[in-house]
Amino acid sequence: MHITIFVTGGTFDKEYNEITGKLYFKDTHVREILESGRSLLEVEIKKLMLIDSLKMTYEDRVEIAQNCSDSESRHIVITHGTDTMRKTANVVSKRNLSKTIVLTGAMIPYKFGSSDGLFNLGCALAFVQSLPIGVYIAMNGKYFRWNEVQKNKRLGRFEKI
Amino acid sequence: MHITIFVTGGTFDKEYNEITGKLYFKDTHVREILESGRSLLEVEIKKLMLIDSLKMTYEDRVEIAQNCSDSESRHIVITHGTDTMRKTANVVSKRNLSKTIVLTGAMIPYKFGSSDGLFNLGCALAFVQSLPIGVYIAMNGKYFRWNEVQKNKRLGRFEKI
Amino acid sequence: MHITIFVTGGTFDKEYNEITGKLYFKDTHVREILESGRSLLEVEIKKLMLIDSLKMTYEDRVEIAQNCSDSESRHIVITHGTDTMRKTANVVSKRNLSKTIVLTGAMIPYKFGSSDGLFNLGCALAFVQSLPIGVYIAMNGKYFRWNEVQKNKRLGRFEKI
Amino acid sequence: MHITIFVTGGTFDKEYNEITGKLYFKDTHVREILESGRSLLEVEIKKLMLIDSLKMTYEDRVEIAQNCSDSESRHIVITHGTDTMRKTANVVSKRNLSKTIVLTGAMIPYKFGSSDGLFNLGCALAFVQSLPIGVYIAMNGKYFRWNEVQKNKRLGRFEKI
Repeated sequence: MHITIFVTGGTFDKEYNEITGKLYFKDTHVREILESGRSLLEVEIKKLMLIDSLKMTYEDRVEIAQNCSDSESRHIVITHGTDTMRKTANVVSKRNLSKTIVLTGAMIPYKFGSSDGLFNLGCALAFVQSLPIGVYIAMNGKYFRWNEVQKNKRLGRFEKI
Repeated sequence: MHITIFVTGGTFDKEYNEITGKLYFKDTHVREILESGRSLLEVEIKKLMLIDSLKMTYEDRVEIAQNCSDSESRHIVITHGTDTMRKTANVVSKRNLSKTIVLTGAMIPYKFGSSDGLFNLGCALAFVQSLPIGVYIAMNGKYFRWNEVQKNKRLGRFEKI
Repeated sequence: MHITIFVTGGTFDKEYNEITGKLYFKDTHVREILESGRSLLEVEIKKLMLIDSLKMTYEDRVEIAQNCSDSESRHIVITHGTDTMRKTANVVSKRNLSKTIVLTGAMIPYKFGSSDGLFNLGCALAFVQSLPIGVYIAMNGKYFRWNEVQKNKRLGRFEKI
Repeated sequence: MHITIFVTGGTFDKEYNEITGKLYFKDTHVREILESGRSLLEVEIKKLMLIDSLKMTYEDRVEIAQNCSDSESRHIVITHGTDTMRKTANVVSKRNLSKTIVLTGAMIPYKFGSSDGLFNLGCALAFVQSLPIGVYIAMNGKYFRWNEVQKNKRLGRFEKI
């Protein structure tokens, strides 16, 4: 089973710039996270962009969807900022692909010593191997059909609707 | 969906005793691991034993299998030492339960700052929600039917047979 | 030997707010850092303020200096943002106290899993026990008389002048 | 100021062998620890041996003392197992060197995600720059003349005698 991970940025990959004191993107940590988890999955990682999902344009989402279409893989994980994860899932779902596609993210940057990114990525990789065709969001150990979930911004968690 | 985690010990839960300089079991870290991953799953954690799986007796494995039978949950994760994971899976499989049961473990203790326990637990929890009835082993991001995998002790990884 | 630590904030104590995605101060981590380092020093920790040192006013610095004067301790460590550490040291030095006073800080927040805060605090606590009376800045394993050092903002390090 | 660190092993540098499940020495982590603390000290690190201090022979201690004599540095830190740190300090002290020599160690291996090694090394490096000539043990944030301290093995800490 061949899995592709499309990296788009989000809190997941943010880092702290010690010179400016601000958060920024330097590069993706997905490879490093998989190694820390001792993953032996055959995974292709493709970085599409590294942006905050609040700054993602419609064109960005179309680019992500196009990559899902073009990919030869039938098992796709997308790392994504949590704020507009559902919007991108919507654009991707319009393609009606015969693929299992799972979007995931993190509430705290991996580089800040937190663990939700690693846990969520583990869950997403397991779900993408075992769930039927469809577009899903995997957060907090759970999976949701993309149109049955929303982010509770006050509590910082994903909830079924 | 209600998930039960049966804790049996293994490298997963080992700690370093700074007075004796030896490894030992104090308590399970499964609850702590789930919190670090920000899991929101409804999970019941039941500690059956805390032992090195090389020291596990046949009676121990029967006790684990009996707990799987008795549990009201149809989704069961078992944390277990990697060395005899397959033996316990064999005993559990004899029960022919209408449940999805996933055994998982770690190569490095969670308390040593490693990440494979967290990653494996995330994967196991995702697989137990999405795989059909059966007994599985989830390690290194992959899942295997219990009788189609073996531990490569030289490399410290699980491989399909 | 009795040591007092005055906490004023700085990068040292910053945290990530996962709801807003911004950095902020919640509380000091000095006690936690000392425990993680297994310190057995008798230390009194007094939080004077929790602010970014770029926002520190002259009145803030006078308050810090006044606390140094008022303290019964002759060994004082001040945790402080790195950007204006020298300015505060200048105000403190005007008091000509018969005390050893060491200012220290961090380039990366302790809560981001970094280690420079712990290392610097260890160094500062050692220097404050062993250096003669005076006002010093301890960063990157070194100590400097307060008026013989400046922060190289481009490289994010302290250098002798 | 030029500082030399002599590495001898001890808990400080122990690692977990995930294949055998046992603790062992692979290499020293002192360089890595200094980088994680963002040390900018000019430090020469020389690995003399990597052993458990309970297995250290008299000849090993003489070798350490000889290296202290031969070194051109007047500021020497020795990383050492805590159990026989005092014995080695005794052998070193016999040389009556005009140097400041500080022995330090850790109760928990650095590789297990603990912090006492980093904290102790920070303290030791600060003490070695600021204490007068003599042989000292630095643990738990404190320094002791080598003949005024003993390890409380039950509590795992160093105490003045």
